[in-house]
Amino acid sequence: MEEITKVVVDAMGGDNAPGEIIRGAMDAIAKRSDIHVILVGQEEVIRRELAGYTYNEEQVEVVNATEVIETAEPPVMAIRKKKDSSIVVGMRLVREKKADAFVSAGSSGAILAGGQLLVGRIKGVERPPLAPLIPTEKGFSLLIDCGANVDARPSHLVQFAKMGSIYMEHVMGVKNPSVRIVNIGAEEEKGNALVKETMPLLKECSDINFAGSIEAREIPHGQADVVVCEAFVGNVILKLYEGVGAVLFSKIKSGMMSSLRSKIGALLVKPALKDTLKTFDASEYGGAPLLGLNGLVVKTHGSSKAKEVCNSILQCSTFRRQRINEKIRACIQGEVADSE
Amino acid sequence: MEEITKVVVDAMGGDNAPGEIIRGAMDAIAKRSDIHVILVGQEEVIRRELAGYTYNEEQVEVVNATEVIETAEPPVMAIRKKKDSSIVVGMRLVREKKADAFVSAGSSGAILAGGQLLVGRIKGVERPPLAPLIPTEKGFSLLIDCGANVDARPSHLVQFAKMGSIYMEHVMGVKNPSVRIVNIGAEEEKGNALVKETMPLLKECSDINFAGSIEAREIPHGQADVVVCEAFVGNVILKLYEGVGAVLFSKIKSGMMSSLRSKIGALLVKPALKDTLKTFDASEYGGAPLLGLNGLVVKTHGSSKAKEVCNSILQCSTFRRQRINEKIRACIQGEVADSE
Repeated sequence: MEEITKVVVDAMGGDNAPGEIIRGAMDAIAKRSDIHVILVGQEEVIRRELAGYTYNEEQVEVVNATEVIETAEPPVMAIRKKKDSSIVVGMRLVREKKADAFVSAGSSGAILAGGQLLVGRIKGVERPPLAPLIPTEKGFSLLIDCGANVDARPSHLVQFAKMGSIYMEHVMGVKNPSVRIVNIGAEEEKGNALVKETMPLLKECSDINFAGSIEAREIPHGQADVVVCEAFVGNVILKLYEGVGAVLFSKIKSGMMSSLRSKIGALLVKPALKDTLKTFDASEYGGAPLLGLNGLVVKTHGSSKAKEVCNSILQCSTFRRQRINEKIRACIQGEVADSE
Repeated sequence: MEEITKVVVDAMGGDNAPGEIIRGAMDAIAKRSDIHVILVGQEEVIRRELAGYTYNEEQVEVVNATEVIETAEPPVMAIRKKKDSSIVVGMRLVREKKADAFVSAGSSGAILAGGQLLVGRIKGVERPPLAPLIPTEKGFSLLIDCGANVDARPSHLVQFAKMGSIYMEHVMGVKNPSVRIVNIGAEEEKGNALVKETMPLLKECSDINFAGSIEAREIPHGQADVVVCEAFVGNVILKLYEGVGAVLFSKIKSGMMSSLRSKIGALLVKPALKDTLKTFDASEYGGAPLLGLNGLVVKTHGSSKAKEVCNSILQCSTFRRQRINEKIRACIQGEVADSE
């Protein structure tokens, strides 16, 4: 018998909710009969949207949640007060084992807080990292952690390295992924206190393919499959990637539009350029998992369209089929046992 | 009478030494009769190179230094052992007040270490920050600190903000420059311990135009004239800027070369694109000053060509004429006096 993956989808989260979110969910169930989606949000709105699709009704469930958490709300407070929000209701379904995973394009802060408070950590996991995939020259890398875990300790970074490695190997299919820690120079003596303390611990890990440090310049070149750093640095990397890309594209566009000659050239260049730059688009790979939880929480971009939502749902299915949480549990608890 | 600025130029440092370095020095003295350069390095090599130029001999001095510090050498050790290297000899000239400034494209580590150990800090300055200019959509911003000062304290960041503000206003001519601190979200409660402790201190500074925090995404858009952060984060920002830019350009190039149609388009687009992207090139503005020293030390890119070297030398002249160190001294010591 086919094993079903049940994915709760936050129908109210993100700039393009509910339209693109529901379209993404419909695309996912059309692709895979072993995926069931539970759409959480204002039932009336969801039903109205669903009326436009033809789909296998067995694969879709709607759960009503009347409240919506806004991006600007203080996350922990929002999670505690808005008990009938799509994020809280959806995460509860995962905690109660009524679903395997939760996907949302809503408030990052609320999703991170909810993951810890509502879904809960796997025993032994000190902090759950948020691990987006970032595009590189060669394909993509996992950047771990970009979450709310600032001021991390060396033991946290070691767990991030292990969980990231498991995810890249078994969900993304990268064999024996290389793991590197972000540093400010290749020499051993360089780095801040955190990196210097973490480095020898990572070297001791026999269960990951640790390859030393990586300078930020090398990240876009794809010189590591798993890029380990604490959340403040990870957030800077993720956001700067977006910012530099956006500014360069706008510069290139205005350069191409600056003369008649270049405008004609732009028309000729456009299709080829579009194809190439698509390979530098992270949404191809789906959202960012929050790892180390009793279940799976995936955060997609606030501006997610159907494709990213669909890919994120498919990702949840791979996550379950590959028994990622069992692997994380064994790895982390093995580690805990070792140090006793 | 004209006031002369004496700039020591490390003729041996960088990938393009001595050719491009000496060319840059020649360009600078041709532009400005109030600049004298002291070329430090292997005298024979320098003289041979100089033979190819016609220049005002009163503006040029050659000081022999037989040793060269390599990039891979441990910096502090190199500074201590290679007493006859161009970096050590050159910095000594600044310390002994025989020159106003030192410009080098050599080993970053040795320049940072030498600045502290040989040139020395202005009284009251806790740590001298390295402050490169980075290109933005609007022009450029000063990123302070990108130096070796990892694990900084809040008081250091406050001094960085003040020194950076003085430099941007009086050397780069940006009126009332806005100062922001790098953070991972706009909300007050976000950030790591360092940022949370520094924020209220910056708000209290009446001598800078502090405008709150900045997310990394906004840096390339030029949303702050002075971008304050500790050195680890600054280094990540600087290097990632280069990395993302390099990968995007190579993607664009290969996209344009992928079909005949796009190749023709590329030919038409090229001149306009080149002009636009020039505005996104940091070397236009010269090197990165190491601020807060008894003199001025400027680090240019390892790959510097004549233009960057020339611009860095001109920068030194503005630095002296604008009495930047007197301004920094007054600002920092005023601050010290206040807190007594």
